[in-house]
Amino acid sequence: MTDLPTTARTDQPAGEALTGYLTAQAGVFLRALPLVVGEAGARAGTLPGGPGGQAAAGTAELLRAVRRIGGALHTYAAGFEPEWAERTRAELRWLLELLAQEPGCLRRSARLLAALDSLSETDPRRPGMLAGHQGAPKARALLERQLTLARTRAHSTLLQELRSARLHALADRMTLLAGEVPLVESQPELAGQAVAALELLSAGVAALPPARAPYGGEGLHRLSVVPPQGQSQAPGPTAEVDADAALAADDAPWGRVRILVKRARYALEVCGERLAGLDEVDEVLDRHQDAADAAVTVATAARTPRITPATAYVLGVVHADQRLEVEAARYAFGRRWPNLQQHGWHEWASS
Amino acid sequence: MTDLPTTARTDQPAGEALTGYLTAQAGVFLRALPLVVGEAGARAGTLPGGPGGQAAAGTAELLRAVRRIGGALHTYAAGFEPEWAERTRAELRWLLELLAQEPGCLRRSARLLAALDSLSETDPRRPGMLAGHQGAPKARALLERQLTLARTRAHSTLLQELRSARLHALADRMTLLAGEVPLVESQPELAGQAVAALELLSAGVAALPPARAPYGGEGLHRLSVVPPQGQSQAPGPTAEVDADAALAADDAPWGRVRILVKRARYALEVCGERLAGLDEVDEVLDRHQDAADAAVTVATAARTPRITPATAYVLGVVHADQRLEVEAARYAFGRRWPNLQQHGWHEWASS
Repeated sequence: MTDLPTTARTDQPAGEALTGYLTAQAGVFLRALPLVVGEAGARAGTLPGGPGGQAAAGTAELLRAVRRIGGALHTYAAGFEPEWAERTRAELRWLLELLAQEPGCLRRSARLLAALDSLSETDPRRPGMLAGHQGAPKARALLERQLTLARTRAHSTLLQELRSARLHALADRMTLLAGEVPLVESQPELAGQAVAALELLSAGVAALPPARAPYGGEGLHRLSVVPPQGQSQAPGPTAEVDADAALAADDAPWGRVRILVKRARYALEVCGERLAGLDEVDEVLDRHQDAADAAVTVATAARTPRITPATAYVLGVVHADQRLEVEAARYAFGRRWPNLQQHGWHEWASS
Repeated sequence: MTDLPTTARTDQPAGEALTGYLTAQAGVFLRALPLVVGEAGARAGTLPGGPGGQAAAGTAELLRAVRRIGGALHTYAAGFEPEWAERTRAELRWLLELLAQEPGCLRRSARLLAALDSLSETDPRRPGMLAGHQGAPKARALLERQLTLARTRAHSTLLQELRSARLHALADRMTLLAGEVPLVESQPELAGQAVAALELLSAGVAALPPARAPYGGEGLHRLSVVPPQGQSQAPGPTAEVDADAALAADDAPWGRVRILVKRARYALEVCGERLAGLDEVDEVLDRHQDAADAAVTVATAARTPRITPATAYVLGVVHADQRLEVEAARYAFGRRWPNLQQHGWHEWASS
């Protein structure tokens, strides 16, 4: 059930392993960056072909590297020159945010249009609950238009920033990192830090609201609002909340666990390890995030002035459908997590 | 796990048991009818007080008796003078249809308004996904108005029919039944007929579409259209279906199983038996029916001309929510059924 080899583990000195991991990832970064910049330069002002294009592949690679370098710098922070590590992480977060926008729009678009097409399917063998509804084509066109607009904006912002001094400075940092990692004298014990990352993940999962029975009738009705970390006080008992705030608060602890899963994955990667099931849980939480984002997009689209009631009705169904997908992802997480924790985890953590 | 006493079972001759059951139920019918008629007469043109009123209690009793007499006449049909039994069943079906309308409206109203209130709850400790949505009060008012109208119509129709010659004739039938049951010479073996009713139920359940994993992503998207019993041909592969037809076809096999459950319950009652769990399954399928009916009501309300997009959006969410309740009932059925079949069922059927 686990990939973790209990014998050949992290015998490398910590500094060597960190250097090996980071220089490799910086290399990925530097090879992927020109693909993104080149495409952007060649076709300035237009959108690249789609999710299959060279720029898209470059962006995916770049995102992978950015996440991994940032994760390693976070978990093994004690091993680096502190000011350098902190600044580098801040710049990587900025680039991550910037790069993630457009693929996010594409995924959201694919998800929502597929949901709409499925819901409004008129094939008599597998019809959807909106089969033949007159609002469906209009709702589809509206979502498509708004998502294309969002994508165009994200693309323009990216184009602009790809020419910025800030990106050049970050690329220089990565060039330096590919050559030499600015380690400090005393290196942390890698396995210990990885275990700490797993423990943080465990604590994050323990802080999630109690698991719901499937179809517990709570999904769309009562959201469990947990005050965001660091804010000790929940909203006062008399303050009313709006739906957007309530949904965001409901999703927040899951978003935190998603980050902790990624950090744990990359922390293990540095040690040359892989915990079976952690990748799947990561995917489940990505799906959670995508569905939650898609629901927000639909709720926003429903506030477009002058849409027809039929369009709005369809958007209401699609919104509920995406919130149901959020519930489905939570349920899937709840089924996988105990298994993940039982197998491999403890052996590894205690070996 | 079962209530079935294996010793003291149906030692009565069949005719005696049938007579006892039917005269008792006819008595219930005759005592309940004046409560319904009296209330209707006293407050003609106005709606009775609500679900707690004397008329409502009378209606519930009357419905119970009508269902049981009809069920017994169906399952043990071989024991009665055929023409009489068939005609009586037809008249009972007519009255059942008539009586069920108003309580159905009340249940639908309670269900939908509770769902809306829960979805739009703004208490920050347990907000709903429509918390603070401007369309919620309007959607609530619209549903309330339409359901009150439907209830008023059902009530008027009932009032009218309560004074009809047709009802008087049926009451006369019940008076005769309370005195003497028109049995034929050769009586069917009761337990054998009850087992046959259970077997029909089993076959109905086996004909249901395969169980879905919870949150299988099928619930709102792809409906499983099974051609109604007796219609061998599904719609041609090129014919498109609309959402109402698709949902009705999706719900149809569950509606059939609901009837088979009730028939099996009443068939066992005649034998003085009770199968543990069958009542619960009956309730689950009633919930299925109520949620499906409520979804239809919402879809219809959403077609009201000149509603605002915000109202329509909320109705879309509520529609999806009720279809989710339909899925939840199916899931609950799927969990209870194997247990019900394993315990008691076979012992009883084979004893």
